[in-house]
This record gives sequence, structure tokens and C-alpha cells, in this order.
Amino acid sequence: MTTVDQPGLDPALADPALADLHRGFAAEHLVPLWTEVGDLMPAHPRSQACAHLWRWNRLLELADRAGHLVPVGRGGERRALALANPGLPGRPFATPTIWAAIQYLMPHEDAPEHRHSQHAFRFVVEGHGVATVVEGDPVAMRRGDFLPQAGLNRHAHHNTADRPMAWIDGLDIPLQYALDTQFFDVGRDAISAAERVLPPRSRSEKLWGHPGLTPVGHRSQRPGSPLLAYRWEHTDAALTDQLELQRTGHPGTVEPGHALVRFTDPRTGGDALPTIRAQFHRIARGVTTAPRRETGSSVYQVFDGSGLVRVGESTWSVTRGDLFVVPSWQAVSVTSQAGASDSDSGALDLFQFGDAPVLHRLGLFRSEVDA
Amino acid sequence: MTTVDQPGLDPALADPALADLHRGFAAEHLVPLWTEVGDLMPAHPRSQACAHLWRWNRLLELADRAGHLVPVGRGGERRALALANPGLPGRPFATPTIWAAIQYLMPHEDAPEHRHSQHAFRFVVEGHGVATVVEGDPVAMRRGDFLPQAGLNRHAHHNTADRPMAWIDGLDIPLQYALDTQFFDVGRDAISAAERVLPPRSRSEKLWGHPGLTPVGHRSQRPGSPLLAYRWEHTDAALTDQLELQRTGHPGTVEPGHALVRFTDPRTGGDALPTIRAQFHRIARGVTTAPRRETGSSVYQVFDGSGLVRVGESTWSVTRGDLFVVPSWQAVSVTSQAGASDSDSGALDLFQFGDAPVLHRLGLFRSEVDA
Amino acid sequence: MTTVDQPGLDPALADPALADLHRGFAAEHLVPLWTEVGDLMPAHPRSQACAHLWRWNRLLELADRAGHLVPVGRGGERRALALANPGLPGRPFATPTIWAAIQYLMPHEDAPEHRHSQHAFRFVVEGHGVATVVEGDPVAMRRGDFLPQAGLNRHAHHNTADRPMAWIDGLDIPLQYALDTQFFDVGRDAISAAERVLPPRSRSEKLWGHPGLTPVGHRSQRPGSPLLAYRWEHTDAALTDQLELQRTGHPGTVEPGHALVRFTDPRTGGDALPTIRAQFHRIARGVTTAPRRETGSSVYQVFDGSGLVRVGESTWSVTRGDLFVVPSWQAVSVTSQAGASDSDSGALDLFQFGDAPVLHRLGLFRSEVDA
Amino acid sequence: MTTVDQPGLDPALADPALADLHRGFAAEHLVPLWTEVGDLMPAHPRSQACAHLWRWNRLLELADRAGHLVPVGRGGERRALALANPGLPGRPFATPTIWAAIQYLMPHEDAPEHRHSQHAFRFVVEGHGVATVVEGDPVAMRRGDFLPQAGLNRHAHHNTADRPMAWIDGLDIPLQYALDTQFFDVGRDAISAAERVLPPRSRSEKLWGHPGLTPVGHRSQRPGSPLLAYRWEHTDAALTDQLELQRTGHPGTVEPGHALVRFTDPRTGGDALPTIRAQFHRIARGVTTAPRRETGSSVYQVFDGSGLVRVGESTWSVTRGDLFVVPSWQAVSVTSQAGASDSDSGALDLFQFGDAPVLHRLGLFRSEVDA
Repeated sequence: MTTVDQPGLDPALADPALADLHRGFAAEHLVPLWTEVGDLMPAHPRSQACAHLWRWNRLLELADRAGHLVPVGRGGERRALALANPGLPGRPFATPTIWAAIQYLMPHEDAPEHRHSQHAFRFVVEGHGVATVVEGDPVAMRRGDFLPQAGLNRHAHHNTADRPMAWIDGLDIPLQYALDTQFFDVGRDAISAAERVLPPRSRSEKLWGHPGLTPVGHRSQRPGSPLLAYRWEHTDAALTDQLELQRTGHPGTVEPGHALVRFTDPRTGGDALPTIRAQFHRIARGVTTAPRRETGSSVYQVFDGSGLVRVGESTWSVTRGDLFVVPSWQAVSVTSQAGASDSDSGALDLFQFGDAPVLHRLGLFRSEVDA
Repeated sequence: MTTVDQPGLDPALADPALADLHRGFAAEHLVPLWTEVGDLMPAHPRSQACAHLWRWNRLLELADRAGHLVPVGRGGERRALALANPGLPGRPFATPTIWAAIQYLMPHEDAPEHRHSQHAFRFVVEGHGVATVVEGDPVAMRRGDFLPQAGLNRHAHHNTADRPMAWIDGLDIPLQYALDTQFFDVGRDAISAAERVLPPRSRSEKLWGHPGLTPVGHRSQRPGSPLLAYRWEHTDAALTDQLELQRTGHPGTVEPGHALVRFTDPRTGGDALPTIRAQFHRIARGVTTAPRRETGSSVYQVFDGSGLVRVGESTWSVTRGDLFVVPSWQAVSVTSQAGASDSDSGALDLFQFGDAPVLHRLGLFRSEVDA
Repeated sequence: MTTVDQPGLDPALADPALADLHRGFAAEHLVPLWTEVGDLMPAHPRSQACAHLWRWNRLLELADRAGHLVPVGRGGERRALALANPGLPGRPFATPTIWAAIQYLMPHEDAPEHRHSQHAFRFVVEGHGVATVVEGDPVAMRRGDFLPQAGLNRHAHHNTADRPMAWIDGLDIPLQYALDTQFFDVGRDAISAAERVLPPRSRSEKLWGHPGLTPVGHRSQRPGSPLLAYRWEHTDAALTDQLELQRTGHPGTVEPGHALVRFTDPRTGGDALPTIRAQFHRIARGVTTAPRRETGSSVYQVFDGSGLVRVGESTWSVTRGDLFVVPSWQAVSVTSQAGASDSDSGALDLFQFGDAPVLHRLGLFRSEVDA
Repeated sequence: MTTVDQPGLDPALADPALADLHRGFAAEHLVPLWTEVGDLMPAHPRSQACAHLWRWNRLLELADRAGHLVPVGRGGERRALALANPGLPGRPFATPTIWAAIQYLMPHEDAPEHRHSQHAFRFVVEGHGVATVVEGDPVAMRRGDFLPQAGLNRHAHHNTADRPMAWIDGLDIPLQYALDTQFFDVGRDAISAAERVLPPRSRSEKLWGHPGLTPVGHRSQRPGSPLLAYRWEHTDAALTDQLELQRTGHPGTVEPGHALVRFTDPRTGGDALPTIRAQFHRIARGVTTAPRRETGSSVYQVFDGSGLVRVGESTWSVTRGDLFVVPSWQAVSVTSQAGASDSDSGALDLFQFGDAPVLHRLGLFRSEVDA
């Protein structure tokens, strides 16, 4: 019989009675546990997904070529290029639970309205001009903004500008694919003229964008944050404040030189999306974060600065826009490295999203910091 | 036997055998339900507390006189004058569950540090210059600010200004008195020099004052909001936004011309204090709110504007600073009346606090809007 | 100024300016905190309620006399004698939050149907024959049974036997009186003939009385346990099992020789009633429990055996049926003393009910075991 | 571009520029959404898993042959044959989230101790004599018993009898494989002599097996029910009671002739396992249940009786021990058919387990009953 961690030769191959028994199993759609247990029940998570890095300039170039070659419309729905983890066969998934893609809209182009059970968000690493129209509420998208769009909300996109715009989409497509819970409806083919007028603040921000203040007359019942835009000015201020608290001797950062904020649903204080955690890190110049491993997977995008990233056995130098994947139970550590220019702060800003809420809700979250 | 709603003469007085029985009850510390049921178990709440109005100018005058006659120090702890509901015997309680008081500090005066299980807040209807120092974090108090201070946090007050300052304290003293859950410790007699320097933002605001953003490194575990100041600029903006949403045809207000925000704990989205709900109303010029009754009691303070208030059978004209009590199950309706000056907006701004979280947590909250 | 724990003479009496100021306070329904703080905000709970003991034979005798003198009917509603704590003025409350009474029905007598927001239960120390009919479901009441009856359920009682029957009622009347949340409706004056037939098990037990099994088709949404009878045979078995686990070296009891079960809502695992905790203790022969103090109050009834009870400064010998009160933050310790007969087990069985769920829900529960 | 539901020929094949673009995508591990969206985001769930039936007599025969050919020991860990859904490639999973297997122990044989993060249970369709020893507590396994064994509890099995015994194992192996959350430890190679003595009730039942009664001294903190055996006598009685309530005109069943109980954690009232729902159906003679579809998947085993099962497009006649799979969003309906013998009740008893708690916790559960 095979051992847990070193499955050897299948004994059924050698013994005729066993071979016959295994043929019986196969005929009845049965598989013996004892030949599978080491892979199915490892001592700790050993994900098929790989640590992997995608360079932003390569993504952007390909997205722009697609912008000139492939129209956007009903059926294909979105001009989005998904990160396909080299370790995951079959489907273009960044991790076993997370979909990550660059989406691209040409000047004045629309993406048609639809809705789906999958939870989604947009994150903007550069550019502006596109509005995402969620349940009729036009929401401007600008550099640094995090824009959650929870399942079953109707949404379309519209580029109001004379330039193309790219951004990152994150969804729980692989999770819902694995769980067989997908629902999808098409919506209107075109948004209205009124929805094409882009106000500086969305209606959602007018209702929900005031710190600690809940609008008593709100009607939002659906899971997922009713606040449709988390603006960069607030995120930046929160990170700056944490590092300043640390400098003046007060708690605030998660570790020395490492500020961290989570995007949360103001109705509950929990994650902004039921299945996706989104966070923003700022690592001060010269700081290296403690190697940390967690169950579940994440995707990171470099928002600003440059640095060195270690994920499991991989090490990469990264810079603005680069995306990388951290599979389950692989330790991640990041070092902020000042750039050539003396003028920048030297901080490394990282946007992160992952499946932590899924694991927390199921009681399967575990984490460790390596000594 | 008496009926439920009209207890008559005690039958024990007339019948010798019954009179003897009742003497037996008394000797054994027993009381028959049938003589009490109508009062104990009424068809609907009939509070002993009265609707009552206190005029701000009278409170302020008496507080100022106390400021010149009564020192603040250990033992008396605070120079606070409690609203004593005329209907509640024995103890100076605004309602059966809520303590409300005006507190007053003379120029450069201190109130010593202590802590207690009672949940508390400050609300500032006018003035500035005082800092409340909560667990070593100096928090400036300014007109319009709501400053929660949950149970068991050490706190002291210090007037940094050359003028006296008054504000409103709200606590759950009557509730904890009824439940016998009070704990109290004295703290330091004097705060440090560093704590006397008043920064524009408290440390709590740097950590928790960014909309929808949770500091992952926070360490706050205690019940009650970790955000120690809800600033007027945010409250005012939120109320303005709700009325603007209404004007442009979108949901936001609780009823036409009536904006309402609740002060909430950013970690949970629930009430800022476990036993006290605090809210801010803005009633547009000329609007009358629908008469609404709820189980549980509230205290209101007029923050700005003037108007007409109806509580149960009472009607009052009110203006800035006036305080009134709404007992359980008495309907309240408010009309905003423009003042003499053409320059004001005509809106009536009302700060409200009450015991709704207690009733919600116990499953005893009920409300009705009169047709 | 007075000190926190030793309020002295009111300084207003001596100083004319202060006396005038205090007259001004009184005229405006204001009370200074500094004369009240020691009583309102003590260092730890100092309940007005007393530890007190009521003897069952005296209660029973007076209840029986009332049975012959006072009819039961609409208006008085119930023939119940409430324990009136000697320390609590005004109202017949066993503790600040708990109502406890002996109820008595003569042979074949009815108590009319009503419903109320107050949560209630029955506990039977001796006798049988009465049915409580809850929402049309007749529930037999027998020695040792705990019968919760959550707020707003219609209920009547009917004595099917040729003998009178007494039992204990527990309600949260004082709590809802303090919170002004009472609602009361009369129901039918008489129950139907079908409801007078008393089955061995109620419908609620058929749905909910199977350990760990939830009826998927149930429709119970109201707060409070849908299981209307917790039968003595189960309670007795659970207590026996805990002591047996201890004897065989396994965890199970709360301390050596002290078994304890809580009556819980099978839908949630929480207390059977939203505002009342009910528990059953078995203390083995010769065992003394560790002195324990808690915020909140309880009433105990001796179900079987005899022993010595210490509550705060009081000590009593107790026997079957005796009732005693434990006020907030007074330590309680119980010793089981074997009776004269060699045949009994020597265990002391105690039924306890109190307001712990209220304090837990409000975050105000605290407990200590004295070393 | 392809449409949502009918992906056509890949346009990249025809157009050289597009073909070149797609080669660029592939080189960078990118995949365009527009060629995938129809499969990834269908209008409703279209599981790869098939409805499929396994015959108990075939499973039993193969398990018995394995019993004579394959030893049980460390490394292979268990003699278990997994149901491998024909529609799911690669791994032997009954559904995308659920592992189901027949396990088999020869007379007086042991399966060694281990523990794992995967949640598991045993269900016994026939036989007895095996004990599962969970954290040192020997639990007898008998026909009709449901025995949950939540993640990270150490457990071994021991056959005390002179005959082989088979039972069903259910685990969330596929879910934790998809989420990369597996942890596994080996335990002792042999259980102690004391653990080989099989008491009629486990310690867990002594603590937790009394309806509505919570042992206050319990120490169980882990997710998953602390009650390790749900005995057939209780399940049978609960189902019998539901049908009797229906016969006497009272609510209780989920639909006419269809009784249903859920195995729940007595600490919470929620599912006995955090990721697996287990239920027991009794369908009265001649009754056909309404076709019902749900997100998520289930496995059923016929416990008694015989009948006709429709799952999606499949129809099978089933009898004792047969197992079948219901994939996500396929409607299931069951008809109870009386057997040849007049003596049986004609009811069809079905044990069901599935992933509903996962979907509920993630907010992804949806169900419909076909009209």
C-alpha cells in the first residue's frame, strides 16, 4: 500500500486479483481512497496554482491591440484578458477561486449592461474617464479607486474620454464555477443619456461615503457594500495616518513600516464583498515585511513604487502595474526599494485581493508568520 | 376582582376573610397579581416618564452659576446638571433608561480621570476649546460633534480655552442602575502635559475616520465605537447629500424633507454605543414629520433652526439648545419653522439619543407611524 | 463636595448662594450629579434588592386559602402570589428584573386566555394535572417540568384533576416595566373541548423534542423556544449523566460534585427565553459549591433534597420548595446536606432562573468565583 | 464574437491579426473572456457533474472483495471506495464539493488514528459492531445512526464484531481540495484497550444527547457538533411524529406525506457540520414529492423502502442502500412505492447529505419548487 506522502507504484498492476478488483472499481465508477489519499489529504495545502508574475506593460500592450481588433458587444460582453495561472489546467483562473483580468475600453466605447451572481470589483492603477453605471448610478473610475460591484447588480461601462482606459477586474468566477452557483442575465443594450453624464460623486457615495454615518433611510438589502467607490484620496490618507501614528509612538500599523487598510461594507464592517477581500498595503522605504502564509489565495497589483517580492520559492523585482499571485500556504514577503528619483517617498503601495472571506465564513482560514 | 384597566377598590378592605388573607400575604412578602395586573401589564406601554421640555438658556445660566460656586474634583467628579423627569420619582433620570445632563467647565479647568461601566457620549451644541482625553487620546470637542465614549474607557476633560464651555452628556446610568451592573474606578488625578496639547484630529480619527476603510492593525476589542469623534462637517455633509438626493429624485431620506443619519460603529455598522442610539435629523423648511411612536425613550436637542414639536399631548415651540424628552410609545412629530431672518436655510436640525439598541438587542423594539 | 463612597451633608444647606442655586435647579427639574454620583455610580453593584428566603409551606398555605376565597377570571387573570423583595419599594418584584410567583388552580378550574409581550415560564415543584394551552397546544405540567412560554403566545391554563395544583411562574415583568415595552391582549374566555383533552406529549414536543434533530418544515419564527415542555425525565438523566462522567474521570460537571444544565432553544442553542435564563443544578451529597458572584439577579427554588445556602451575608437551611433570591454581585454558595432518611441520594436539586441573557445581550455580564 | 450561449468558431483561427494576438495572449498566460464567457457565466448553473446511481449490492460486493485483498494501515489509512462522478474529470469526487465512499472493516480489524481539516461523517445503512473512537470517546455505530466527526478531531475505527461491517463516509474533500485548505496529521497507530470497550452510549451523548438541555460545564469550542451520534431511534421517532402531526391536522411536514429532519449542532441549531448538511426524509406510501431544484449538490442513500427517483432527465427505481447524486440546479422528485410485502409501511426513507451550509454561508443558496 502507498504511504501518505510518497505514493509508489500502483500495487494493482502487479497482482492479478488486485488488477481484477480495480477493473471492478472502474466499471462501477469507484476509486479506492488508498491510492489517492496522499494527494487529496496532504499534511498541509499544496496548491496546484503557481506563484506567477504578469508584467503590466505586456498586459497593456496586448489589451491595446485587442482594443483595435476586437469589438465589445453583447455575447462577448467585455474586452477583458484573464490571468491564466500556469499551474491550473483547463480554465483561465488566476487562482483556484479568483478571476483577475485587465479590461480595456476604447474612447467613447460602451460595454453593455448585464448582471450576474458573481461578485466583482474594478481597481484602477492608472487613467480615468470611464464610468461604471451600477443600477443606474454612474460611478467615475479614477487612479487608485476601488469599485466593488456585488453580485446581481446590473452594470454597464462607458468611456467618456477621448483616450482608451484600462483597469483591473476581480471576480469570484472560479469559486462560483466550482460551486455551480452561477446566474447571468443580460440587461439593456445601451445606457441612457442621463447615465452618460458623469458626476464627481456617485449617489452611493452621497448616501454611504461619510465616515461612521449610516443613512437611516437606505434600502440596500443585498449582500455586498452599498458604497460603490472607495476613493484614492481616502485610502491614501488612511495609509499616511497609520504611518504617522507609528512615527509618534502609537499603534496603527500591522508591523513596523507596514500600513494596511481593508475595504469594508459600512453596513457591517465586514469585507466589501461576500467572497472577496480587498486591501491596500503601504510599505515604507527600505522595509521588508515578515513572511506570512495563509490558507487561500491572493492577487496583488503594484500601485506605486518598486520593490522585491518573494512568494514561496519565487523572487521578482516589481514595479507599477505588475500583478502577481500568491497561492495558498505559500509565504509572501515584500521589500520596498526606493527608485532612481530622489523625489519619491520610496514607499511601495500594493493593492491586494483574495478569497479570505470565503475561508473565514467556512471556518477554514488559518495563517502563520514565519519567525 | 378588579378589571385590567380600571382597578377598583381593593376587595380586601370589605371582606374580613380577604382582609385576613391579605395580612397573611403582607407578612410573607407576597403580593397578589390580581390587584396589580392592570398597572404591570397594560395593553400598551404607559410610561411614568413625562414628555417634558428644558430651555437651553435656563440650563446654561444655572450651569454658569454652578461654575462660579462649585469646584470640580475627585468625589463629585463632574460639574453636570441632570435633567430630572418630573414623572420619575426618586432619581434624576431624563427617561427610565437615559441620563442627560449639561456639563460645564470653567476656563482652563480639568475634570479628573475615571472610568465606569456606563456608556456615555458628549454632544456639543455650541462652543469649543475642551478636550476629552480618552485612554490618553486628546479629542477636541467642537460645535456639532458627537463624541462617544464607551464603558470602561478611562477619560478626563480639560478646557484649553479662556472661556467656559458647556455640552451635553448622555449616559445609560438609569439602565445600569436598574440592572445593577455598575462598576467605577477613579483614574489619575491629573492628565499629563502632552495630553493637554490638543491636535486637530484625535488618534482615533486617524485610524477609524476614513469612510469604508478598516485599519487591519487595530487592536480595539471593547464594545462601543473606536471612533471617538464624529465631526460636524461630515454629519452636515451627509444630511445635505440626503436632501439633494431627494431633490434629484433618488431615495435617501426617511420621508419627504426629512434627512436622518445614525452614528455607527465602523467595526460593525451597529450603533456607536451598545445601549445608546444617537442620530441626527434635518427637517427641511416647512416640513412636518409623520407622527411616529416607538417602544423606548429618547431625548432630543435642537441643534439649529426653530420649530414646533408635538410629543403625545404636549406641544412646544423650540429653538437652539432646547432639550425635550419623548417617553415610550408617545408619538412625536416635528415641524420646521423658518426664523425671522431670510438668510437661514429654514431647516430644523435635531440631535436625538435614546435606548433603541437595548430594545433591539432584547427583541422588544416596536414602532408605528400614525396614518 | 461629597466623596464617591461617603456622601456627607448636602453643602447646599449651609451656603446661602448654594442653597439659592439648588432652588434654581429644583425649579428647572435639574439635579446636580455631584450629590448623586456615589449612589448612581458605585465601585461595584450594590443592589437595593435583598437576599431573601420564602418558605414553600407558607406560600402553599396562603395560595390554598386564596383558592377558596378568590375566583380566577378576566381582569385579575391569574391566581398568582408574587414574591415581593423587601428591598424593592413600590412594586412586587422578586428582583429588579424578575417576577416570581406561586400560581394556584382549584380542581377543574380554568385561567382565561391572554397574551403579553412579557416572557414567561412555569416550573412545577410538585403535583400534576394542569395543562397550559399555548397557541392551542395543550401541554401537561408535571413535577420537574420546565415550561417556557415566550412573549406574545396566547395561553390559558386548565386543571384537569380533582385536586388543586400549584406551580411557579417566572416572568420578566419588572424588566419590561422598567423599559416600558409592555403589550397585553385578552384572548378567548374559554378554551375548546378539544383543548381540554390532555395528550401525554404536546405537539411542540413532537416537533422539537428529539435531540439534535430540527424539523425542516417548522414555521416558528418568534423569539423564544418552540419547545414548550422540558420534561423532568430528560433533565434528571442529563444531571445523572454529568455526575457519572465525573465519576469515570471525564469532563462534564461545572465543578466537582456540581452538575448543571441550561434550558435552551433548540433553534439557536441560546437561552430558552430571550430575557430569562433557566438552569437546573444537582449538588452531590456533602458538596459545597464555590462562592460565585455575577452581575444580574436570580431566583432559586429547591426541587429536592435539603441543604445550606449562603447568599452575601445571609445563611439559610432550605428544603423542598423553598425559594430564595440572589441579588446582583452577591456571592452564592450551596451545600448539600443529606436528610434523615438513608434512602435518599443526598443530592440537592435546585432550579434557578435569572436575567443573565439580558446582561449578555447588552454586554454587561460579569462573573467572579471567590478564591 | 461568440454569443453567450452558443460559442461558435474561434474567430482567431480565421484572421491572421487575431491569430497573432491570441498567440500573444498565450505567451503571456492570458485568455480572453469573450471566448469563455458562455461557459464561465451561464444563465443558470450547468454542472459538469452528472446525475448518477450506484447500486448498493455492487458496492458491497466490491468492498468485500477489497476486504479480503487489501489490508488497512498507515499510509492508505482507510479501506474506502469513493463514488467517482462520471462527469467530473480527474479526481474521484461524487459531486464538485462532496466525497462519498463505502468504508469496510473486516472482523476485529482497526483503521489507524488520524485527524484532518476535512469535515466528515459516517452513516450506517446496515450492520453494527464497529466503534469510531473520536478524541478517545468510543462511539458505537448501528443501522440508522448518523455520526458526524468534524474537522481536526482525532479518530480511529475498530470492528468489535465477528462479521465485516460496511458504512458510508461523507466528507468535504473536494471542497477543501478546491480551496487548498487541507491539513492532515497521523495519530496513534493503535487505540488503547479501554477504548476497545464499547459502551451503549458515548460520552458525547451523555453530555449533549438530552433534548433542549445544554451542559453548562462543556468545553467544546471547535466548529462542528459535539454530539457524535444521532441515533436511529430518535430520527425514526421524529419522522413518525411529523407524519402523525400531519394526520391530526397540524403543521410539521415539509409537504403532504413528506417528513424531513435535519441533523443539527445543539450548541447553535445550525448544521451538524460547517460544510455539510445531513437530513433524513420519510416519504409516505404512494406520495410523490414536488420537483425541487437548489444550488449546490447532494448525495442520497435509500435507507428503507423502495421507490422511483427523478433527477433532471434521469429516472431510476431504487431500493435499500442505493446511492444517487443530485447535481446543482437539477430538479429532484421522489415517489414512494410499496414493496411486495403487505407488512411494510410502504414509506421510503432517504438519507441525504450535501453542501448547502457552504452556499448559505456564502450567500449563494437559491432554491425553486417547480409548479
